[in-house]
Amino acid sequence: MDTATARALLPAAVEEACAGLAEGGVPIGAALYGPDGTLLGRGHNRRVQDGDPSMHAETAAFRAAGRLRGYRGTTMVTTLSPCWYCSGLVRQFGIPRVVIGEADTFYGGHDWLAEHGVEIVVLDDAECKALMRDFIRANPELWSEDIGD
Amino acid sequence: MDTATARALLPAAVEEACAGLAEGGVPIGAALYGPDGTLLGRGHNRRVQDGDPSMHAETAAFRAAGRLRGYRGTTMVTTLSPCWYCSGLVRQFGIPRVVIGEADTFYGGHDWLAEHGVEIVVLDDAECKALMRDFIRANPELWSEDIGD
Repeated sequence: MDTATARALLPAAVEEACAGLAEGGVPIGAALYGPDGTLLGRGHNRRVQDGDPSMHAETAAFRAAGRLRGYRGTTMVTTLSPCWYCSGLVRQFGIPRVVIGEADTFYGGHDWLAEHGVEIVVLDDAECKALMRDFIRANPELWSEDIGD
Repeated sequence: MDTATARALLPAAVEEACAGLAEGGVPIGAALYGPDGTLLGRGHNRRVQDGDPSMHAETAAFRAAGRLRGYRGTTMVTTLSPCWYCSGLVRQFGIPRVVIGEADTFYGGHDWLAEHGVEIVVLDDAECKALMRDFIRANPELWSEDIGD
């Protein structure tokens, strides 16, 4: 997938991240798209809002998509490099492509996914970086909690 | 951890697996214990019951434990070898030990966890194996769906 096509998929994930920020949560958003570009599910980190540490952005988007028989041809779009938990989700369910807003403020498991055949597109998006940089600066303990650091 | 100590932690996870089976779900259960042996959270796979593909047994137990500042000294007990998704959870949050009922009907990411310093105890438990063997035989498509196969 070329960068322009990948970039066109980013806005829903960024909207989710901004919604999470407005709720006082961790500003990471994600969206899962089908092979034909249909939005299957979108969501954002819900640690603070629901007191639920299992709802990272990618798992929230995956949950919102409901039960599916398979993930062939799908694309997971996320504002931030996926942590090991979310990278494991991608690998286990055979999601073949991940579009990442940025991998500058946090570097997760996307190289491992690439080694296992997942197509990775990192966009180095300025808005995604600003969201996380400001959040981490203001909430270092919450961020550490969210990534088990 | 020796096998007898690990085995003493298994019953809550097996009860969860049996509860899931009784609900018509995937019979995998898990429980997260604190450093002093306190039960922090327990749960079972909820794909069928909640239509939620993100709730594997380990993620359900992790969620049930609520927000924690860290996972030092904790033990995740699961009736079945953790898939990549649940292995990623363990690695990301630094859960240092995983007790596994069996790794015979499904072989997940526990060798990878061991390579990254997680203590792994596999119990080869007959009840856990029977639960999964019967379930897979009766529900092969549901099982494939649950592991993205």
